[in-house]
Amino acid sequence: MSEPLPAGPSIRRIPDGDDRERLVCPDCGYVSYENPKIVVGSVALWDGLILLCRRAIPPRDGFWTLPAGYLETGESTEAGAVREAWEEARARIEIETLLAVYNIPRISQVQLIYRSKLTSSEIAPGPESREVGLFRWDDIPWDDIAFPSVHWALGHHAETREAAEFPPRVNPPGETGDF
Amino acid sequence: MSEPLPAGPSIRRIPDGDDRERLVCPDCGYVSYENPKIVVGSVALWDGLILLCRRAIPPRDGFWTLPAGYLETGESTEAGAVREAWEEARARIEIETLLAVYNIPRISQVQLIYRSKLTSSEIAPGPESREVGLFRWDDIPWDDIAFPSVHWALGHHAETREAAEFPPRVNPPGETGDF
Repeated sequence: MSEPLPAGPSIRRIPDGDDRERLVCPDCGYVSYENPKIVVGSVALWDGLILLCRRAIPPRDGFWTLPAGYLETGESTEAGAVREAWEEARARIEIETLLAVYNIPRISQVQLIYRSKLTSSEIAPGPESREVGLFRWDDIPWDDIAFPSVHWALGHHAETREAAEFPPRVNPPGETGDF
Repeated sequence: MSEPLPAGPSIRRIPDGDDRERLVCPDCGYVSYENPKIVVGSVALWDGLILLCRRAIPPRDGFWTLPAGYLETGESTEAGAVREAWEEARARIEIETLLAVYNIPRISQVQLIYRSKLTSSEIAPGPESREVGLFRWDDIPWDDIAFPSVHWALGHHAETREAAEFPPRVNPPGETGDF
């Protein structure tokens, strides 16, 4: 790639009538209202086993995560979690209940993590996964988990696995999702 | 304003390595990844009365709504709901529990609506409200509610008002939030 990337909205200033800085493009003047991003995913279960995906892309390439990713426009949160399971692990899932709502304000991320069940044990790595697996609790690769919120979700799943209905869990006390 | 507004990212095409159309700026080439927006707000209570705000801005100028609005970057969902109560109704609130997660995919909106309590009955319209009020259930201006999701949240509040813990409600069956 020899062509320079366009700057896009990259200058911070307060637009007229606003009360905080926004990103403005130095080339064309467009004001970009940055929005927090919604991550949707699930703790996906097959006969008590937990689906994990070993990442093939940064950040945390090579580490294990839940099937989860950015919600797309025009998509419900449940549909997004179903799509992510397919894209990352070629897994077909059904959403059961909302397990957790995590906030990671440093990176402006809100995560909605569901509990789901696989409708088949057939899984295979999608383009963003090196490998995928169905893990017994004791076999989870605890030392190679990609993100703090994956640890949280696995712990919150263990706490709530016997419950049909419960309020969704939130960040553990004092934890902000940073490493 | 005699200066034309910049176009910004306004042309749809599939960027290299992507699998769906994104908005690209015709002037500078910047690719904008549109993200769904997160709305945060609450059913805010004072001694059983419900805080409502009569909108002073479009859409639905003049109609009544809950204190709610877009989550800002770097902000947790609970902090956003607290901020919105202040901005729209000069109300100080404490978040109690997550009442509902609504999806309105047509406008790419995910709404997180909490139950909260006012810590004082002092309220006053903020710049985006014509007036604000604390309503008994029977006095709610049902014919002048701004959005379907406000109806949903009020109904879900009534269903859950005696419960300390419960799974958050979702869209009523078949409802997508459109008028």
